[in-house]
Amino acid sequence: MNASIITVNPTFKHCHIKPMASSTTLFLTIFSKHGYKISYFLNLFIGLIRKIINLIEKKIKDMKQSIGAKTLAFPTPTWVVGTYDMNGKPNAMTVAWAGICCSNPPCVTVSLRKATYSYAGIMENKAFTVNIPSEDYVKEADYFGIASGRDENKFEAACLTPIRSELVPAPYVGEFPVVLECKLLHSLEVGLHTMFVGEIVDIKAEESVLDESGNPDIEKIRPIIYSPGSRSYYGIGCDLGKAFSVGKEC
Amino acid sequence: MNASIITVNPTFKHCHIKPMASSTTLFLTIFSKHGYKISYFLNLFIGLIRKIINLIEKKIKDMKQSIGAKTLAFPTPTWVVGTYDMNGKPNAMTVAWAGICCSNPPCVTVSLRKATYSYAGIMENKAFTVNIPSEDYVKEADYFGIASGRDENKFEAACLTPIRSELVPAPYVGEFPVVLECKLLHSLEVGLHTMFVGEIVDIKAEESVLDESGNPDIEKIRPIIYSPGSRSYYGIGCDLGKAFSVGKEC
Repeated sequence: MNASIITVNPTFKHCHIKPMASSTTLFLTIFSKHGYKISYFLNLFIGLIRKIINLIEKKIKDMKQSIGAKTLAFPTPTWVVGTYDMNGKPNAMTVAWAGICCSNPPCVTVSLRKATYSYAGIMENKAFTVNIPSEDYVKEADYFGIASGRDENKFEAACLTPIRSELVPAPYVGEFPVVLECKLLHSLEVGLHTMFVGEIVDIKAEESVLDESGNPDIEKIRPIIYSPGSRSYYGIGCDLGKAFSVGKEC
Repeated sequence: MNASIITVNPTFKHCHIKPMASSTTLFLTIFSKHGYKISYFLNLFIGLIRKIINLIEKKIKDMKQSIGAKTLAFPTPTWVVGTYDMNGKPNAMTVAWAGICCSNPPCVTVSLRKATYSYAGIMENKAFTVNIPSEDYVKEADYFGIASGRDENKFEAACLTPIRSELVPAPYVGEFPVVLECKLLHSLEVGLHTMFVGEIVDIKAEESVLDESGNPDIEKIRPIIYSPGSRSYYGIGCDLGKAFSVGKEC
Protein backbone atom coordinates (compact mmCIF):
# COMPACT_ATOMS: atom_id res chain seq x y z
CA MET A 1 0.00 0.00 0.00
CA ASN A 2 1.20 3.46 -0.82
CA ALA A 3 1.19 5.29 2.53
CA SER A 4 1.36 8.71 0.89
CA ILE A 5 -2.08 8.16 -0.69
CA ILE A 6 -3.56 7.70 2.77
CA THR A 7 -1.96 10.77 4.29
CA VAL A 8 -2.76 13.19 1.47
CA ASN A 9 -6.41 12.24 1.57
CA PRO A 10 -7.66 12.24 5.17
CA THR A 11 -11.23 11.61 3.92
CA PHE A 12 -10.40 7.95 3.65
CA LYS A 13 -9.60 7.55 7.31
CA HIS A 14 -13.27 6.57 7.75
CA CYS A 15 -14.24 5.08 4.42
CA HIS A 16 -15.05 1.57 3.25
CA ILE A 17 -11.47 0.97 2.06
CA LYS A 18 -9.98 0.13 5.45
CA PRO A 19 -11.45 -3.40 5.78
CA MET A 20 -10.41 -3.97 2.18
CA ALA A 21 -6.79 -3.17 3.14
CA SER A 22 -6.74 -6.05 5.65
CA SER A 23 -8.37 -8.30 3.02
CA THR A 24 -5.51 -7.33 0.73
CA THR A 25 -2.98 -8.54 3.31
CA LEU A 26 -4.84 -11.83 3.70
CA PHE A 27 -5.01 -12.20 -0.07
CA LEU A 28 -1.28 -11.58 -0.43
CA THR A 29 -0.44 -14.17 2.24
CA ILE A 30 -2.50 -16.88 0.50
CA PHE A 31 -1.27 -16.12 -2.99
CA SER A 32 2.32 -15.30 -2.01
CA LYS A 33 3.61 -16.85 -5.19
CA HIS A 34 2.39 -13.99 -7.39
CA GLY A 35 2.49 -11.47 -4.56
CA TYR A 36 4.10 -8.62 -6.45
CA LYS A 37 1.74 -8.70 -9.40
CA ILE A 38 -1.36 -9.12 -7.24
CA SER A 39 -0.28 -6.26 -4.97
CA TYR A 40 0.26 -4.01 -8.01
CA PHE A 41 -3.17 -4.70 -9.51
CA LEU A 42 -4.91 -4.47 -6.14
CA ASN A 43 -3.35 -1.07 -5.46
CA LEU A 44 -4.47 0.04 -8.89
CA PHE A 45 -8.00 -1.23 -8.18
CA ILE A 46 -8.12 0.40 -4.73
CA GLY A 47 -6.90 3.69 -6.21
CA LEU A 48 -9.69 3.52 -8.80
CA ILE A 49 -12.36 2.80 -6.18
CA ARG A 50 -11.06 5.73 -4.11
CA LYS A 51 -11.31 8.03 -7.10
CA ILE A 52 -14.90 6.88 -7.76
CA ILE A 53 -15.85 7.45 -4.08
CA ASN A 54 -14.19 10.87 -4.21
CA LEU A 55 -16.19 11.75 -7.30
CA ILE A 56 -19.45 10.55 -5.73
CA GLU A 57 -18.76 12.55 -2.55
CA LYS A 58 -17.92 15.63 -4.61
CA LYS A 59 -21.11 15.15 -6.62
CA ILE A 60 -23.20 14.88 -3.42
CA LYS A 61 -21.42 17.95 -1.98
CA ASP A 62 -21.94 19.96 -5.17
CA MET A 63 -25.67 19.25 -5.03
CA LYS A 64 -25.88 21.39 -1.89
CA GLN A 65 -25.85 25.17 -1.91
CA SER A 66 -24.63 27.36 0.93
CA ILE A 67 -27.49 29.59 2.00
CA GLY A 68 -25.79 31.35 4.89
CA ALA A 69 -26.21 31.49 8.65
CA LYS A 70 -29.98 31.62 9.14
CA THR A 71 -32.59 30.19 11.49
CA LEU A 72 -34.01 27.79 8.94
CA ALA A 73 -34.71 24.47 10.63
CA PHE A 74 -37.79 22.30 10.12
CA PRO A 75 -40.16 21.66 11.78
CA THR A 76 -40.51 24.23 14.54
CA PRO A 77 -43.50 24.33 16.90
CA THR A 78 -46.24 26.92 17.30
CA TRP A 79 -46.65 27.33 21.03
CA VAL A 80 -48.32 30.07 23.02
CA VAL A 81 -46.51 31.19 26.18
CA GLY A 82 -48.86 32.29 28.98
CA THR A 83 -47.72 34.80 31.63
CA TYR A 84 -49.06 37.36 34.08
CA ASP A 85 -47.76 40.91 33.93
CA MET A 86 -46.78 42.84 37.07
CA ASN A 87 -50.42 43.89 37.56
CA GLY A 88 -51.72 40.35 37.25
CA LYS A 89 -53.10 40.86 33.75
CA PRO A 90 -52.92 37.61 31.76
CA ASN A 91 -50.84 37.72 28.62
CA ALA A 92 -50.03 35.29 25.82
CA MET A 93 -47.37 35.27 23.12
CA THR A 94 -46.69 32.85 20.29
CA VAL A 95 -43.22 31.35 19.94
CA ALA A 96 -41.57 29.01 17.46
CA TRP A 97 -38.05 29.20 18.89
CA ALA A 98 -38.79 26.45 21.42
CA GLY A 99 -38.49 22.74 22.16
CA ILE A 100 -38.14 20.03 24.76
CA CYS A 101 -34.66 20.00 26.34
CA CYS A 102 -34.62 17.37 29.10
CA SER A 103 -36.47 14.20 30.09
CA ASN A 104 -35.74 14.30 33.81
CA PRO A 105 -36.73 16.76 35.11
CA PRO A 106 -39.04 17.22 32.14
CA CYS A 107 -38.15 20.62 30.68
CA VAL A 108 -38.94 22.86 27.74
CA THR A 109 -37.20 25.92 26.33
CA VAL A 110 -38.90 29.01 24.99
CA SER A 111 -36.85 31.89 23.59
CA LEU A 112 -38.09 35.47 23.78
CA ARG A 113 -36.64 38.85 22.96
CA LYS A 114 -36.14 41.18 25.93
CA ALA A 115 -38.35 43.77 24.25
CA THR A 116 -41.45 41.56 24.52
CA TYR A 117 -44.04 42.10 27.23
CA SER A 118 -44.00 38.38 28.05
CA TYR A 119 -40.28 38.52 28.84
CA ALA A 120 -41.02 40.81 31.78
CA GLY A 121 -43.89 38.52 32.83
CA ILE A 122 -41.62 35.49 33.05
CA MET A 123 -38.92 37.43 34.92
CA GLU A 124 -41.57 38.75 37.34
CA ASN A 125 -43.23 35.44 38.17
CA LYS A 126 -40.48 32.91 37.40
CA ALA A 127 -43.13 30.85 35.67
CA PHE A 128 -44.96 30.42 32.39
CA THR A 129 -47.29 28.04 30.61
CA VAL A 130 -46.80 26.49 27.18
CA ASN A 131 -50.14 26.24 25.39
CA ILE A 132 -50.47 23.99 22.36
CA PRO A 133 -53.17 25.22 20.00
CA SER A 134 -55.01 22.93 17.63
CA GLU A 135 -55.38 23.82 13.94
CA ASP A 136 -58.78 25.32 14.80
CA TYR A 137 -57.00 28.11 16.67
CA VAL A 138 -54.45 29.07 14.00
CA LYS A 139 -55.85 32.62 13.74
CA GLU A 140 -55.77 33.14 17.50
CA ALA A 141 -52.24 31.69 17.71
CA ASP A 142 -51.07 34.03 14.97
CA TYR A 143 -52.79 36.99 16.62
CA PHE A 144 -50.90 36.24 19.87
CA GLY A 145 -47.70 36.58 17.84
CA ILE A 146 -48.69 39.89 16.24
CA ALA A 147 -50.21 41.99 19.05
CA SER A 148 -48.47 43.10 22.26
CA GLY A 149 -49.82 42.61 25.77
CA ARG A 150 -48.43 46.07 26.51
CA ASP A 151 -51.22 47.60 24.40
CA GLU A 152 -54.16 45.29 24.98
CA ASN A 153 -55.58 42.31 26.84
CA LYS A 154 -54.89 39.69 24.19
CA PHE A 155 -57.08 37.04 25.81
CA GLU A 156 -60.11 39.37 25.65
CA ALA A 157 -59.33 40.41 22.09
CA ALA A 158 -59.01 36.77 20.98
CA CYS A 159 -62.13 35.75 22.96
CA LEU A 160 -60.13 33.07 24.79
CA THR A 161 -60.25 32.23 28.48
CA PRO A 162 -57.25 32.70 30.77
CA ILE A 163 -57.34 30.04 33.47
CA ARG A 164 -55.14 30.61 36.52
CA SER A 165 -52.84 27.63 37.01
CA GLU A 166 -53.05 26.20 40.51
CA LEU A 167 -49.40 25.11 40.36
CA VAL A 168 -47.51 28.07 38.93
CA PRO A 169 -48.24 31.84 38.82
CA ALA A 170 -49.18 31.84 35.14
CA PRO A 171 -52.41 31.59 33.15
CA TYR A 172 -53.17 28.97 30.54
CA VAL A 173 -55.45 29.11 27.53
CA GLY A 174 -58.64 27.31 28.52
CA GLU A 175 -59.64 26.44 24.96
CA PHE A 176 -56.33 24.90 23.82
CA PRO A 177 -56.22 21.09 24.05
CA VAL A 178 -52.87 20.69 25.84
CA VAL A 179 -51.08 23.01 28.25
CA LEU A 180 -47.79 22.66 30.12
CA GLU A 181 -47.39 24.41 33.46
CA CYS A 182 -43.73 25.41 33.91
CA LYS A 183 -41.63 26.95 36.62
CA LEU A 184 -38.52 28.81 35.50
CA LEU A 185 -35.37 26.75 36.02
CA HIS A 186 -32.75 28.63 33.99
CA SER A 187 -32.45 31.62 31.72
CA LEU A 188 -29.63 31.98 29.24
CA GLU A 189 -28.78 35.11 27.28
CA VAL A 190 -27.94 33.68 23.86
CA GLY A 191 -27.99 36.89 21.81
CA LEU A 192 -31.06 38.73 20.56
CA HIS A 193 -33.14 36.09 22.37
CA THR A 194 -33.11 34.95 25.96
CA MET A 195 -33.72 31.25 26.32
CA PHE A 196 -35.91 30.26 29.27
CA VAL A 197 -35.77 26.68 30.51
CA GLY A 198 -38.98 25.75 32.27
CA GLU A 199 -39.53 22.64 34.33
CA ILE A 200 -42.86 21.05 33.39
CA VAL A 201 -44.61 20.58 36.73
CA ASP A 202 -47.83 19.29 35.18
CA ILE A 203 -49.60 18.90 31.87
CA LYS A 204 -53.31 19.51 31.51
CA ALA A 205 -55.04 17.98 28.52
CA GLU A 206 -58.60 17.79 27.31
CA GLU A 207 -60.13 14.35 27.68
CA SER A 208 -61.10 14.42 24.01
CA VAL A 209 -57.43 14.38 22.89
CA LEU A 210 -56.26 11.50 25.09
CA ASP A 211 -55.46 8.07 23.69
CA GLU A 212 -56.31 4.74 25.34
CA SER A 213 -53.26 4.92 27.60
CA GLY A 214 -54.21 8.39 28.80
CA ASN A 215 -51.54 10.29 26.85
CA PRO A 216 -52.29 13.14 24.47
CA ASP A 217 -52.65 11.87 20.90
CA ILE A 218 -51.04 14.09 18.27
CA GLU A 219 -53.70 13.14 15.70
CA LYS A 220 -56.43 14.33 18.04
CA ILE A 221 -54.56 17.47 19.12
CA ARG A 222 -53.73 18.48 15.53
CA PRO A 223 -50.94 20.88 16.61
CA ILE A 224 -49.60 23.62 14.34
CA ILE A 225 -46.16 23.49 12.72
CA TYR A 226 -44.37 26.72 11.93
CA SER A 227 -42.15 26.94 8.88
CA PRO A 228 -39.44 29.62 9.12
CA GLY A 229 -38.39 31.17 5.81
CA SER A 230 -41.81 31.01 4.21
CA ARG A 231 -43.32 32.05 7.59
CA SER A 232 -46.27 29.68 7.15
CA TYR A 233 -48.29 27.37 9.36
CA TYR A 234 -48.85 23.69 8.58
CA GLY A 235 -50.85 20.83 10.02
CA ILE A 236 -49.76 17.30 10.80
CA GLY A 237 -49.54 14.89 7.88
CA CYS A 238 -49.37 11.13 7.47
CA ASP A 239 -48.18 8.63 10.04
CA LEU A 240 -44.72 7.52 8.89
CA GLY A 241 -44.24 4.71 11.37
CA LYS A 242 -43.17 3.90 14.89
CA ALA A 243 -39.95 5.26 16.37
CA PHE A 244 -37.40 2.77 17.70
CA SER A 245 -38.95 0.32 15.28
CA VAL A 246 -38.90 1.27 11.58
CA GLY A 247 -35.12 1.79 11.79
CA LYS A 248 -34.63 -1.88 12.58
CA GLU A 249 -35.45 -2.63 8.94
CA CYS A 250 -32.59 -0.35 7.90
CA MET B 1 -71.84 48.56 42.36
CA ASN B 2 -71.17 46.35 45.30
CA ALA B 3 -67.41 46.68 45.89
CA SER B 4 -67.28 43.52 47.98
CA ILE B 5 -68.32 41.44 44.97
CA ILE B 6 -65.31 42.68 43.04
CA THR B 7 -62.77 41.99 45.76
CA VAL B 8 -63.93 38.50 46.67
CA ASN B 9 -63.62 37.40 43.08
CA PRO B 10 -60.24 38.52 41.69
CA THR B 11 -60.93 36.62 38.44
CA PHE B 12 -63.01 39.53 37.28
CA LYS B 13 -60.21 42.03 37.40
CA HIS B 14 -59.67 41.36 33.70
CA CYS B 15 -63.03 40.23 32.47
CA HIS B 16 -65.59 41.74 30.14
CA ILE B 17 -67.59 43.17 33.06
CA LYS B 18 -65.41 46.26 33.59
CA PRO B 19 -66.69 48.24 30.58
CA MET B 20 -70.21 47.30 31.66
CA ALA B 21 -69.57 48.90 35.05
CA SER B 22 -68.86 52.30 33.47
CA SER B 23 -71.93 51.86 31.26
CA THR B 24 -73.88 51.28 34.46
CA THR B 25 -72.70 54.64 35.84
CA LEU B 26 -73.71 56.40 32.62
CA PHE B 27 -77.03 54.66 32.66
CA LEU B 28 -77.62 55.69 36.25
CA THR B 29 -76.80 59.34 35.50
CA ILE B 30 -79.22 59.52 32.58
CA PHE B 31 -82.04 57.72 34.30
CA SER B 32 -81.44 59.23 37.74
CA LYS B 33 -85.18 59.32 38.40
CA HIS B 34 -85.42 55.57 38.83
CA GLY B 35 -81.78 55.22 39.87
CA TYR B 36 -82.30 52.94 42.84
CA LYS B 37 -84.46 50.42 41.00
CA ILE B 38 -82.21 50.38 37.92
CA SER B 39 -79.11 49.97 40.06
CA TYR B 40 -80.70 47.04 41.89
CA PHE B 41 -81.67 45.20 38.71
CA LEU B 42 -78.36 45.94 37.03
CA ASN B 43 -76.42 44.54 39.97
CA LEU B 44 -78.62 41.49 39.86
CA PHE B 45 -77.96 41.14 36.14
CA ILE B 46 -74.18 41.63 36.53
CA GLY B 47 -74.11 39.08 39.35
CA LEU B 48 -75.91 36.60 37.09
CA ILE B 49 -73.48 37.20 34.20
CA ARG B 50 -70.56 36.69 36.59
CA LYS B 51 -72.02 33.43 37.80
CA ILE B 52 -72.44 32.26 34.19
CA ILE B 53 -68.81 33.22 33.35
CA ASN B 54 -67.63 31.44 36.51
CA LEU B 55 -69.54 28.33 35.48
CA ILE B 56 -68.13 28.46 31.93
CA GLU B 57 -64.57 28.85 33.28
CA LYS B 58 -65.11 25.97 35.69
CA LYS B 59 -66.52 23.87 32.85
CA ILE B 60 -63.47 24.66 30.64
CA LYS B 61 -61.15 23.83 33.55
CA ASP B 62 -62.98 20.59 34.31
CA MET B 63 -62.63 19.49 30.71
CA LYS B 64 -58.87 19.22 31.24
CA GLN B 65 -57.22 16.31 32.99
CA SER B 66 -53.92 16.45 34.83
CA ILE B 67 -51.58 13.94 33.22
CA GLY B 68 -48.48 14.66 35.28
CA ALA B 69 -45.01 16.08 34.65
CA LYS B 70 -44.00 14.55 31.31
CA THR B 71 -42.18 15.57 28.15
CA LEU B 72 -45.31 15.63 26.03
CA ALA B 73 -45.21 18.65 23.74
CA PHE B 74 -46.20 18.74 20.07
CA PRO B 75 -44.68 18.93 17.53
CA THR B 76 -41.03 18.06 18.14
CA PRO B 77 -38.48 17.73 15.33
CA THR B 78 -36.62 14.68 14.03
CA TRP B 79 -33.06 15.90 13.55
CA VAL B 80 -29.86 13.93 13.14
CA VAL B 81 -26.81 15.30 14.97
CA GLY B 82 -23.50 14.68 13.15
CA THR B 83 -20.21 14.47 15.07
CA TYR B 84 -16.71 13.01 14.84
CA ASP B 85 -15.48 10.78 17.63
CA MET B 86 -12.01 11.15 19.13
CA ASN B 87 -10.58 8.97 16.35
CA GLY B 88 -12.20 11.00 13.62
CA LYS B 89 -14.90 8.39 12.92
CA PRO B 90 -18.12 10.07 11.75
CA ASN B 91 -21.16 9.48 13.92
CA ALA B 92 -24.83 10.43 13.77
CA MET B 93 -27.60 10.39 16.34
CA THR B 94 -31.28 11.27 16.09
CA VAL B 95 -32.73 13.80 18.52
CA ALA B 96 -36.20 15.21 19.13
CA TRP B 97 -35.33 17.28 22.20
CA ALA B 98 -34.19 20.22 20.08
CA GLY B 99 -35.21 23.55 18.58
CA ILE B 100 -34.17 26.99 17.43
CA CYS B 101 -33.26 29.28 20.35
CA CYS B 102 -31.99 32.57 18.95
CA SER B 103 -32.25 34.66 15.77
CA ASN B 104 -29.02 36.61 16.13
CA PRO B 105 -26.64 34.86 16.26
CA PRO B 106 -28.76 32.10 14.69
CA CYS B 107 -28.67 29.23 17.15
CA VAL B 108 -30.18 25.80 17.75
CA THR B 109 -30.31 23.59 20.81
CA VAL B 110 -29.89 19.82 20.83
CA SER B 111 -30.14 17.87 24.07
CA LEU B 112 -28.22 14.63 24.59
CA ARG B 113 -27.64 12.29 27.50
CA LYS B 114 -24.05 12.07 28.75
CA ALA B 115 -24.09 8.33 28.10
CA THR B 116 -24.39 8.79 24.33
CA TYR B 117 -21.38 8.46 22.05
CA SER B 118 -22.31 11.72 20.29
CA TYR B 119 -22.07 13.61 23.61
CA ALA B 120 -18.33 12.86 23.73
CA GLY B 121 -18.02 13.84 20.05
CA ILE B 122 -19.50 17.28 20.67
CA MET B 123 -17.36 17.82 23.76
CA GLU B 124 -14.26 16.74 21.81
CA ASN B 125 -14.76 18.95 18.75
CA LYS B 126 -16.95 21.76 20.13
CA ALA B 127 -19.01 21.39 16.97
CA PHE B 128 -21.87 19.41 15.44
CA THR B 129 -24.17 19.41 12.46
CA VAL B 130 -27.97 19.27 12.48
CA ASN B 131 -29.19 17.17 9.56
CA ILE B 132 -32.82 17.39 8.52
CA PRO B 133 -34.01 14.17 6.90
CA SER B 134 -36.84 14.04 4.42
CA GLU B 135 -39.67 11.51 4.82
CA ASP B 136 -37.76 9.24 2.42
CA TYR B 137 -35.13 8.71 5.11
CA VAL B 138 -37.42 7.89 8.04
CA LYS B 139 -35.89 4.42 8.43
CA GLU B 140 -32.33 5.76 8.42
CA ALA B 141 -33.28 8.53 10.86
CA ASP B 142 -34.84 5.99 13.20
CA TYR B 143 -31.83 3.70 12.89
CA PHE B 144 -29.55 6.61 13.93
CA GLY B 145 -31.64 6.82 17.11
CA ILE B 146 -31.45 3.10 17.86
CA ALA B 147 -27.81 2.08 17.24
CA SER B 148 -24.73 3.45 18.99
CA GLY B 149 -21.63 4.83 17.28
CA ARG B 150 -19.67 3.12 20.03
CA ASP B 151 -20.46 -0.25 18.43
CA GLU B 152 -20.55 0.50 14.73
CA ASN B 153 -20.02 3.02 11.95
CA LYS B 154 -23.63 4.15 11.61
CA PHE B 155 -23.06 5.95 8.31
CA GLU B 156 -21.74 2.75 6.70
CA ALA B 157 -24.54 0.66 8.19
CA ALA B 158 -27.19 3.09 6.90
CA CYS B 159 -25.43 3.42 3.50
CA LEU B 160 -25.29 7.20 3.89
CA THR B 161 -22.37 9.49 3.08
CA PRO B 162 -20.56 11.50 5.76
CA ILE B 163 -19.32 14.74 4.23
CA ARG B 164 -16.68 16.66 6.19
CA SER B 165 -17.89 20.21 6.81
CA GLU B 166 -15.40 22.82 5.68
CA LEU B 167 -16.53 25.20 8.40
CA VAL B 168 -16.75 23.08 11.57
CA PRO B 169 -15.09 19.81 12.63
CA ALA B 170 -18.21 17.71 12.13
CA PRO B 171 -19.62 15.57 9.33
CA TYR B 172 -22.98 16.06 7.69
CA VAL B 173 -25.27 13.57 5.98
CA GLY B 174 -24.74 14.01 2.24
CA GLU B 175 -28.14 12.62 1.28
CA PHE B 176 -30.30 14.75 3.61
CA PRO B 177 -31.80 17.84 1.94
CA VAL B 178 -30.86 20.45 4.58
CA VAL B 179 -27.96 20.54 7.02
CA LEU B 180 -26.91 23.13 9.61
CA GLU B 181 -23.24 23.47 10.48
CA CYS B 182 -22.88 24.52 14.11
CA LYS B 183 -20.11 25.49 16.45
CA LEU B 184 -20.71 24.92 20.14
CA LEU B 185 -21.62 28.14 21.93
CA HIS B 186 -22.94 26.93 25.30
CA SER B 187 -23.66 23.71 27.12
CA LEU B 188 -26.10 23.57 30.01
CA GLU B 189 -26.57 20.63 32.35
CA VAL B 190 -30.35 20.54 32.75
CA GLY B 191 -30.72 17.11 34.34
CA LEU B 192 -30.59 13.76 32.56
CA HIS B 193 -29.87 15.71 29.39
CA THR B 194 -27.20 18.24 28.58
CA MET B 195 -28.43 20.98 26.31
CA PHE B 196 -25.95 22.13 23.67
CA VAL B 197 -26.45 25.51 22.06
CA GLY B 198 -24.87 25.61 18.62
CA GLU B 199 -24.36 28.72 16.54
CA ILE B 200 -25.41 28.06 12.95
CA VAL B 201 -22.40 29.16 10.88
CA ASP B 202 -23.91 28.03 7.59
CA ILE B 203 -26.79 26.03 6.13
CA LYS B 204 -26.30 23.75 3.17
CA ALA B 205 -29.38 22.82 1.19
CA GLU B 206 -30.03 20.84 -1.95
CA GLU B 207 -31.03 22.98 -4.90
CA SER B 208 -34.10 20.82 -5.40
CA VAL B 209 -35.62 21.96 -2.07
CA LEU B 210 -35.12 25.70 -2.54
CA ASP B 211 -37.99 28.07 -3.29
CA GLU B 212 -37.89 31.00 -5.69
CA SER B 213 -36.22 33.27 -3.12
CA GLY B 214 -33.49 30.70 -2.47
CA ASN B 215 -34.75 29.54 0.93
CA PRO B 216 -35.49 25.91 1.78
CA ASP B 217 -39.17 25.12 1.20
CA ILE B 218 -40.76 22.91 3.86
CA GLU B 219 -43.07 21.31 1.30
CA LYS B 220 -40.09 20.24 -0.79
CA ILE B 221 -38.00 19.14 2.20
CA ARG B 222 -40.86 17.10 3.71
CA PRO B 223 -39.24 16.96 7.18
CA ILE B 224 -40.23 14.43 9.83
CA ILE B 225 -42.19 15.29 12.95
CA TYR B 226 -41.72 13.22 16.09
CA SER B 227 -44.62 12.65 18.42
CA PRO B 228 -43.59 11.89 22.02
CA GLY B 229 -45.98 9.64 23.95
CA SER B 230 -46.99 7.53 20.98
CA ARG B 231 -43.34 7.61 19.80
CA SER B 232 -44.37 7.93 16.16
CA TYR B 233 -43.15 9.83 13.13
CA TYR B 234 -45.39 12.06 11.01
CA GLY B 235 -45.10 14.03 7.82
CA ILE B 236 -46.11 17.60 7.11
CA GLY B 237 -49.80 18.24 6.46
CA CYS B 238 -51.85 21.02 4.93
CA ASP B 239 -50.84 24.66 4.63
CA LEU B 240 -52.84 26.52 7.29
CA GLY B 241 -51.94 30.05 6.22
CA LYS B 242 -49.33 32.75 6.49
CA ALA B 243 -47.88 33.77 9.84
CA PHE B 244 -48.17 37.45 10.87
CA SER B 245 -51.17 37.56 8.56
CA VAL B 246 -54.04 35.14 9.37
CA GLY B 247 -54.16 36.51 12.94
CA LYS B 248 -55.15 39.93 11.63
CA GLU B 249 -58.58 38.50 10.89
CA CYS B 250 -58.91 37.52 14.54
